Amino acid sequence: MTQIKNDIAMIGLGVMGKSLALNLLDNGFNVAGFDLSADNIERASSEAKQLNESFDGKGQFTKGTSLEHVLQSLAKPRVIALSVPAGKPVDIVVNNLLDAGLESDDIVIDTGNSLWTDTETREQNYKGKLRFFSTAVSGGEEGARVGPALMASGDPSAWQYVKPMWEAIAAKVDANGLPVAQFEVGEACAAYVGPSGTGHYVKMVHNGIEYADMQLICEVYQFMRGVLEMPAQEIGQVFEQWNNGVLNSYLMEISADILQHEDVVTGKPFVEVVLDKAGQKGTGLWTAVNSLQAGCPTPTIAQAVYARAMSGQKSQRVQGSQLLKGNIADANLLDKTEVISELHDALYCAKLCVYAQGFDLLKTASDKEGWNLDFTQIAKIWRAGCIIRAAFLQSITAAYQQNNELANLLFDEAFIKQVEERELAWRIAVANSALFGVPMPGISSALSYFDSLRCEVLPANLLQAQRDYFGSHTYSRVDREEAEKFHVTWSQSPRTEVKVNT
Amino acid sequence: MTQIKNDIAMIGLGVMGKSLALNLLDNGFNVAGFDLSADNIERASSEAKQLNESFDGKGQFTKGTSLEHVLQSLAKPRVIALSVPAGKPVDIVVNNLLDAGLESDDIVIDTGNSLWTDTETREQNYKGKLRFFSTAVSGGEEGARVGPALMASGDPSAWQYVKPMWEAIAAKVDANGLPVAQFEVGEACAAYVGPSGTGHYVKMVHNGIEYADMQLICEVYQFMRGVLEMPAQEIGQVFEQWNNGVLNSYLMEISADILQHEDVVTGKPFVEVVLDKAGQKGTGLWTAVNSLQAGCPTPTIAQAVYARAMSGQKSQRVQGSQLLKGNIADANLLDKTEVISELHDALYCAKLCVYAQGFDLLKTASDKEGWNLDFTQIAKIWRAGCIIRAAFLQSITAAYQQNNELANLLFDEAFIKQVEERELAWRIAVANSALFGVPMPGISSALSYFDSLRCEVLPANLLQAQRDYFGSHTYSRVDREEAEKFHVTWSQSPRTEVKVNT
Repeated sequence: MTQIKNDIAMIGLGVMGKSLALNLLDNGFNVAGFDLSADNIERASSEAKQLNESFDGKGQFTKGTSLEHVLQSLAKPRVIALSVPAGKPVDIVVNNLLDAGLESDDIVIDTGNSLWTDTETREQNYKGKLRFFSTAVSGGEEGARVGPALMASGDPSAWQYVKPMWEAIAAKVDANGLPVAQFEVGEACAAYVGPSGTGHYVKMVHNGIEYADMQLICEVYQFMRGVLEMPAQEIGQVFEQWNNGVLNSYLMEISADILQHEDVVTGKPFVEVVLDKAGQKGTGLWTAVNSLQAGCPTPTIAQAVYARAMSGQKSQRVQGSQLLKGNIADANLLDKTEVISELHDALYCAKLCVYAQGFDLLKTASDKEGWNLDFTQIAKIWRAGCIIRAAFLQSITAAYQQNNELANLLFDEAFIKQVEERELAWRIAVANSALFGVPMPGISSALSYFDSLRCEVLPANLLQAQRDYFGSHTYSRVDREEAEKFHVTWSQSPRTEVKVNT
Repeated sequence: MTQIKNDIAMIGLGVMGKSLALNLLDNGFNVAGFDLSADNIERASSEAKQLNESFDGKGQFTKGTSLEHVLQSLAKPRVIALSVPAGKPVDIVVNNLLDAGLESDDIVIDTGNSLWTDTETREQNYKGKLRFFSTAVSGGEEGARVGPALMASGDPSAWQYVKPMWEAIAAKVDANGLPVAQFEVGEACAAYVGPSGTGHYVKMVHNGIEYADMQLICEVYQFMRGVLEMPAQEIGQVFEQWNNGVLNSYLMEISADILQHEDVVTGKPFVEVVLDKAGQKGTGLWTAVNSLQAGCPTPTIAQAVYARAMSGQKSQRVQGSQLLKGNIADANLLDKTEVISELHDALYCAKLCVYAQGFDLLKTASDKEGWNLDFTQIAKIWRAGCIIRAAFLQSITAAYQQNNELANLLFDEAFIKQVEERELAWRIAVANSALFGVPMPGISSALSYFDSLRCEVLPANLLQAQRDYFGSHTYSRVDREEAEKFHVTWSQSPRTEVKVNT
């Protein structure tokens, strides 16, 4: 048994936990690993061994034999990271750690995809017994291994112990906001974003944006495939080109790659052998539900969640495709080059609306909960490492650096100009989706969102009048204080207006 | 103190409770009324008195002096209806009733807008202490007074005591499914829809549909007002005309009425003095949240909820209207008559999609919870009394009568034909909304929904491939069993496909 004291323990050595552990080792930290599966421990240990054989200066990996053993191997205050499934497993492990001798000064970090309200509850419940901390990790397996984006939150006194490790293993960006390799000098995509639960909340919204971002790309692909009849390979090439411009992003890059990948079994374009049913783990759904409850419009995120649900209803769609033949316009009317350029602009504008919705939701929650979220900081840590990393997060960073109180991201001067240049093309793309029968729930909901934001007067005056008519729900008048409420005696003759005390 | 035994007690004599009580009196039932507000009791009593003075054969109203007094005045088993705010008040009243001597055979009916899962919990909690029953009431104040739609559920043994009263006070339809006055011979819009909670669930979905229905009308109004520059009065006339055709409905009727109503203060069209901020009580939100959680796409309902939220963000919109000038098409290109006809068809098709979404959600919940909902029955009781009553609910009734297992309402033969005739106009209306910058989140999301249903293959193949790329989430192949899952080793060279054991 080695006498070195470990810097951190990783409980749960599945895909994410193992990758984070190896990343820590890469950066010279000593890690004690534990998992209920002996196989997972062995796998992590053998990969750690390979690391040590290939390079000097790596941290040491200790195979934990029990939680007691893991705790004894750690320097105090002990830092224990959990990478276990969200929900009950988190509490089970924390309670086992308490039984194994965890002390009130020790720090437990939940790195899973927990629901932020669960994290809030946990911090309350464990107060006095341990320092509960959480860090949402974005970047998937690869990100966790070579540089994820890390959104930390919880007990502020714990941050000083966690910070050096998180900043070391996180993704880095250079002075221009562009991703650089992990060991180069750069700004780390890791930050303490706020009190208990906020890290998971910010990550939840990140994932909501991710859902929508993916959906938008898919809609453009569907139009190119269906109406322009472009083969997957060609669409992939277009995406590759787009990835060199304003649309530069990880999701665009991998979509281009996927579309040009050939199935090893059939030799066909790979995407054509993949079943069109998309799964989900719930974070996009949480975002949509939260936005509805918060009264903050994020329609494009909700549409992305519904699109996945619709993809699951394959048998209904097969029946629908036979029964609903579609009365649509003639595709021969279209100019391919023009259409592709319109789709490009539509994708960019819609993407911008998705981020505007996501940041509006962050602002709404921050105002309501008193979190004081720093939107510049959030945009910064999303510039590299995470799934939604994209060149234009540097522009978002700039927008919030100029004005952290921006009422809507779309009101930033630079973005106003960018949209103005592309707006008409976006409108034409949405019109085409309607006329040619290719569903674009995401891109068109983004346009509705944009156009609603442009409306000083929405038709909600009629809607509120309807509510007053059938439910006596009252209304405010444009020529009186909003707080004064009125009701029309609709069923009386003659009708009068009465002022209602509320 | 009178010796007659009352048929029912009404606890809570606010707008809805009082109206239901008077409706019961109208139908010859004796009612004991109670409210925490003595004023409310007095008001109900005096209106009851007027009833008795004007007509014979009305029921007697007893002013309850306490819950004990109310219970003593009732025939056994005692039937007590609650009309109190949803949430805690329901449990408080039930517990007070238990303290006042309620017996296990007695029936308590929650007629409020409770969340269906609360109702389920209550039925469990009160089992053995009383018979908990619930009845969702739709129709607003006027409906409750002269004939609402009633969705009853809960302890089946209670229904026999409730049924005669509910059938008497409910709205009625004639043999053609058209609303008739309450006292005429007809089919009552009251039914026992299923076990505990289902009445409130069905009503929740009803309200979700109502939200969307209202929003669709508002979107058409907004286009006519903004692009066609039609005055409110003229739009009202168009709506009045439409109300004579396939769009015939209560909401169309009152919208036509509202638009032609003149403000008594300014003499302007009434809608123009109403502030464009729409309130909400939560049932539409519940529907959207439930549909997201159930994985059942109801995008148009969610869009309606978001549209209300967006209406509330007035200051953001005022700013937006100044900053985002809009790069839109030239309205002079449009032919007014044609556009109005297209809007008509768009409204009808979108409305049909909303009902398709609502019924799909009912079916999803019914299948999951084992409720065995009878969709014909539900369509039937929505034909009169409730807010979404509309001529075409008779067609929906017919569709489900033919096939209660219809996978989607849009797959009904008659509806397929109706949509086919209007589809192109619908597409043009949505295209115009994009080109002319008038947001139609509801109508366009309905079209996306329709077009998604027509897609045998959605672009979710690319989406699932993205998920496999960054998160190893695996995929199914179109040429293998769906249960077999595969993963590409994206970061290796050469890439291989591995079968994953799940």
